[in-house]
Amino acid sequence: MSAHAGTRSVPQSLEHPLPAGMRDLLPEEASIRRTLARQALECFALRGYAVVTPPVFEFAEVLERGLGVLDPTDVLRFVEPESGEVAALRPDMTPQIARIIATRLRDRPPPFRLGYEGTVLRRRSGRARKHRQIPQVGVELAGIAGPDGDLELLALAADALRATGLPRFALDIGDAGVVRALLGPLPAADQARISEALGRKDAAEVAAASAAAQSPYAEALAMLPDLHGDRDALVEGLSRLASTPAAPAARRLLAFFDAATSAGLGGYLSADLGEVRGFAYYTGPVFHAYAFGTGDAIGSGGRYDELLGRFGWDLPAAGFALDLDRLGEALQAAGVSGRVAVRVVVVGPPQSPRLAELRARGIAAVASPDRAAALAWARAWGFTHVADAADATDAGGWFDAVTGGAVASPLATGAGSTERPPREPQRERIGT
Amino acid sequence: MSAHAGTRSVPQSLEHPLPAGMRDLLPEEASIRRTLARQALECFALRGYAVVTPPVFEFAEVLERGLGVLDPTDVLRFVEPESGEVAALRPDMTPQIARIIATRLRDRPPPFRLGYEGTVLRRRSGRARKHRQIPQVGVELAGIAGPDGDLELLALAADALRATGLPRFALDIGDAGVVRALLGPLPAADQARISEALGRKDAAEVAAASAAAQSPYAEALAMLPDLHGDRDALVEGLSRLASTPAAPAARRLLAFFDAATSAGLGGYLSADLGEVRGFAYYTGPVFHAYAFGTGDAIGSGGRYDELLGRFGWDLPAAGFALDLDRLGEALQAAGVSGRVAVRVVVVGPPQSPRLAELRARGIAAVASPDRAAALAWARAWGFTHVADAADATDAGGWFDAVTGGAVASPLATGAGSTERPPREPQRERIGT
Repeated sequence: MSAHAGTRSVPQSLEHPLPAGMRDLLPEEASIRRTLARQALECFALRGYAVVTPPVFEFAEVLERGLGVLDPTDVLRFVEPESGEVAALRPDMTPQIARIIATRLRDRPPPFRLGYEGTVLRRRSGRARKHRQIPQVGVELAGIAGPDGDLELLALAADALRATGLPRFALDIGDAGVVRALLGPLPAADQARISEALGRKDAAEVAAASAAAQSPYAEALAMLPDLHGDRDALVEGLSRLASTPAAPAARRLLAFFDAATSAGLGGYLSADLGEVRGFAYYTGPVFHAYAFGTGDAIGSGGRYDELLGRFGWDLPAAGFALDLDRLGEALQAAGVSGRVAVRVVVVGPPQSPRLAELRARGIAAVASPDRAAALAWARAWGFTHVADAADATDAGGWFDAVTGGAVASPLATGAGSTERPPREPQRERIGT
Repeated sequence: MSAHAGTRSVPQSLEHPLPAGMRDLLPEEASIRRTLARQALECFALRGYAVVTPPVFEFAEVLERGLGVLDPTDVLRFVEPESGEVAALRPDMTPQIARIIATRLRDRPPPFRLGYEGTVLRRRSGRARKHRQIPQVGVELAGIAGPDGDLELLALAADALRATGLPRFALDIGDAGVVRALLGPLPAADQARISEALGRKDAAEVAAASAAAQSPYAEALAMLPDLHGDRDALVEGLSRLASTPAAPAARRLLAFFDAATSAGLGGYLSADLGEVRGFAYYTGPVFHAYAFGTGDAIGSGGRYDELLGRFGWDLPAAGFALDLDRLGEALQAAGVSGRVAVRVVVVGPPQSPRLAELRARGIAAVASPDRAAALAWARAWGFTHVADAADATDAGGWFDAVTGGAVASPLATGAGSTERPPREPQRERIGT
């Protein structure tokens, strides 16, 4: 610690605050996020999805074309100085991908299979409506209408989650058309009030608001918060909605459930006829992915057949995104540690040929002047071993970074990794 | 094309413009950038550098602490609504990493070896001073003073460039202390004028400005634009500066040149005693990396021993960043194509077991209903092969996506890649 630090009483982290919702990823967390993103994107690539990268901010007009008029308190906006136009940090990447498809990629034949990795800035739902910087990976599939496209995406989401090693998760499917059909005749303010209550599964409030709005489907709306569960619940719900305009969407949801079951996804499935969460652009099947260890969804998506038309190309489309922070929490809760790569601190000068030798074998290596310093540094930075530059052989000269005790050479076994769980990520609190 | 598009006469890309300097990366370019970033970061990791990820914008105060007062026309700034403070999109990530080291990582033992990947927004130098979004990878090494640290970074930069497959490049080294020592006594306005002329190697203007400023070192300053080249030029320059305050920095540069030569980097080296380009925070050795095919540097870095002190921890430090756009241009000019992964369009239904079979072998595969559509789609999206779902075997049923002709199964050879050069990236013009 410098003398400077000693003269201050405030923590250093408060001395240089970050803008609201922004945070740093320290090495452990950055490494986990990179690994998760890579696993998901490799999975997307195997299914033929190509990565595109839109810029981190756009003119608000483009985002609003996709998302509807943005609540100024929900989105970080500023005047872009060269144009004088309002730009916004994206709360969602889907409108950007829609713009790219309808403009820059217009000369290519559909279907469009595009993937992305990026950060969005969004208000958290619930009482503490702070901004949150959300690292995402996702895909969009444009040009394949109906069940074929929906099923491709649901299966891909399951594949991507499995690829990260997540042992258990749930896929909760719904259909934006159910609530849409029942709210259709009402004024926007009533729609918003009822939707909000549906989102909280507050049946009493749904009933009160629907009655107040004189909805012809007040009874059906009030049932929705209970119409979720397994296939039986879905069949039961369908029969209750049979005489309402929601019946076609409910039938579509049951067909989606059965198709997903046939595709081997039955073990993950539940259904919710009252699902309303998600972007306003959804027009058909939607889903959320859940896992233990995090209350929020680890992924979500759905069909948005009207969005591309707003950018000038009337193509059906659907997509989903995974929240890498939430997914990381779920993996940690599941005890999925992954294998930690062997990384070695070599006790010796930086010119030691031992360093080049290890690196040539694909093993990270740094030099440190003495064994005590090497052990302290290795522990702090998550290196697994300390080795004497001069003496380390397959037979000796190797030390475990955590215990400091002599261990067998990790090279003798030929294994480039070890089973030790990774250092717990230090997650910064969301800025205030 | 939709009816909507037919009614418009403006190109679609102009219909949804991007903010100045922002651009989209389409699949080919996004893929190249991801590959380059991965290759560099893997190289950094082998040398013990751990990735950190700062947010894309910061309070301007943090950036200005590192970079000096920011010219408002050089940096994209806006008022962050929750705090009312001015935030800025970073033109450089080094002050952010310095902040992280001095605050969030303060409990860890030096040296700090940190890497990053990210985009900065910067004005282009030269007449057309537009913003440019620059994708970077880089490293910072804090806690190792002097030649050991400088050499580690120069060697790492060379390693990272070689790791991308770049066959030839040049490392031009300089020392920020040379010009600093000669300009030291002058008022800031004179320093700026002379520095600007030195940056253009305009000896006449340097002489005129130095004389006008009544610099005691006008003669030495006027020589600087010519003091660059190989080691002999450096020795000659050192003798000319021997009686000036720049002599210690010039000697340090010669020692750095010799140490880099001893470390096997001699084939890449040139030196420039008049080097002034780079951030104001540089205090010692600096370097730029160049390659054919791009006029701008593909990478640059240097020592900045005073920067961390401004964040409360007085540690020596140095770092460098690679410009992934410029590096991509250099690789393309060098004809480095890389190997293209085999990717297959299967003619058949999406349920075809052939798809799962290919994916299980790590080969990207998508379905298409008929061979003509499959060939057109494969060509547009850079897939290499078309295969009949039912008939393709190791003996037949495979077609080259480009020629459409029958080819041997790419699986029979066991090779998961092919030598075809990648599709030329379509680079968007920088926004206006």
